[in-house]
Amino acid sequence: MGHRVFRDSRVTTHVCLTARALGASGVIIANSPDKGVESSVREVVKRFGGSFQVETGPEWRHVIRGWKGEGGKVLHLTAYGLPLPKVIDQIQAVRADLLVVVGSEKMPGEMFKLADWNVSVTSQPMSEVGALAVFLDWYHSHMEFELDFPGSEMQIVPSKEGKIVKEVSRVACKSLALD
Amino acid sequence: MGHRVFRDSRVTTHVCLTARALGASGVIIANSPDKGVESSVREVVKRFGGSFQVETGPEWRHVIRGWKGEGGKVLHLTAYGLPLPKVIDQIQAVRADLLVVVGSEKMPGEMFKLADWNVSVTSQPMSEVGALAVFLDWYHSHMEFELDFPGSEMQIVPSKEGKIVKEVSRVACKSLALD
Repeated sequence: MGHRVFRDSRVTTHVCLTARALGASGVIIANSPDKGVESSVREVVKRFGGSFQVETGPEWRHVIRGWKGEGGKVLHLTAYGLPLPKVIDQIQAVRADLLVVVGSEKMPGEMFKLADWNVSVTSQPMSEVGALAVFLDWYHSHMEFELDFPGSEMQIVPSKEGKIVKEVSRVACKSLALD
Repeated sequence: MGHRVFRDSRVTTHVCLTARALGASGVIIANSPDKGVESSVREVVKRFGGSFQVETGPEWRHVIRGWKGEGGKVLHLTAYGLPLPKVIDQIQAVRADLLVVVGSEKMPGEMFKLADWNVSVTSQPMSEVGALAVFLDWYHSHMEFELDFPGSEMQIVPSKEGKIVKEVSRVACKSLALD
């Protein structure tokens, strides 16, 4: 929430990449349609695989009400919330789709009421990207390093001190060479 | 590394706030003096406490050589590195000051050689803010929620659905300052 086109595109892209890498199924950027962010995220999905969804523009209350209407739960990451270690067990125990809301300092007070949980990653001023990363890591019990991203054109091969990228198919090789 | 004044100020501020909240002692922004980032981070430290240091401008190789010269270790967070779960025990076992290097995609190849460890938080394209957050959380064994930030003017009081901030009294400030 609170994305401002142009000014915030880089931070919002960080939110999207963090969400994808740490196991979220998708991201909704509320209120501000931003085709630039959408296309850079889709390009990453195309190259590195998986089925991460990105949507920009829908009104935030509409998203939250729709989510809850379908039985999902809503968690708002905010420095003012309850500490993550106190609530993580309760959150993990709920078998419902989870919508994690992050935004800037100017989050409307109404968000605090709409959320099923207001959760803090440290009670300090914090980056929403950093808070989202720590939350998703905890939520997935630190197991997202095992995630698979099927259908990629390329894969990074972990390395002690190089940059090793494996191209997955010939077709992919060709298209990369042409770029 | 790789901070560009104006264009990157918001992302770099996210790096600084994440580092501070998750227990780093300070941050050095290499090559690009940026008084704007310095002053916004110092303002957070003044209001929310602790002794987090911020410095901008020194040449990156100079910082790394100085750090190693004093016996410190250097860890570079990069999607191309070894997976965090494989190396965290080894890193935690070393009793030396740790410099964690993050930057943009355009990191020079030399950095990979200078680092004692190249470490990835998932082998996926990832935000350096998100990677730093997960790394610091693991490095501190998920205990940074217990950290103290002495000398603050205000403290956030964790809350189920409100925004509660306690102003720390002058007397308290004073006695803390005397410590």
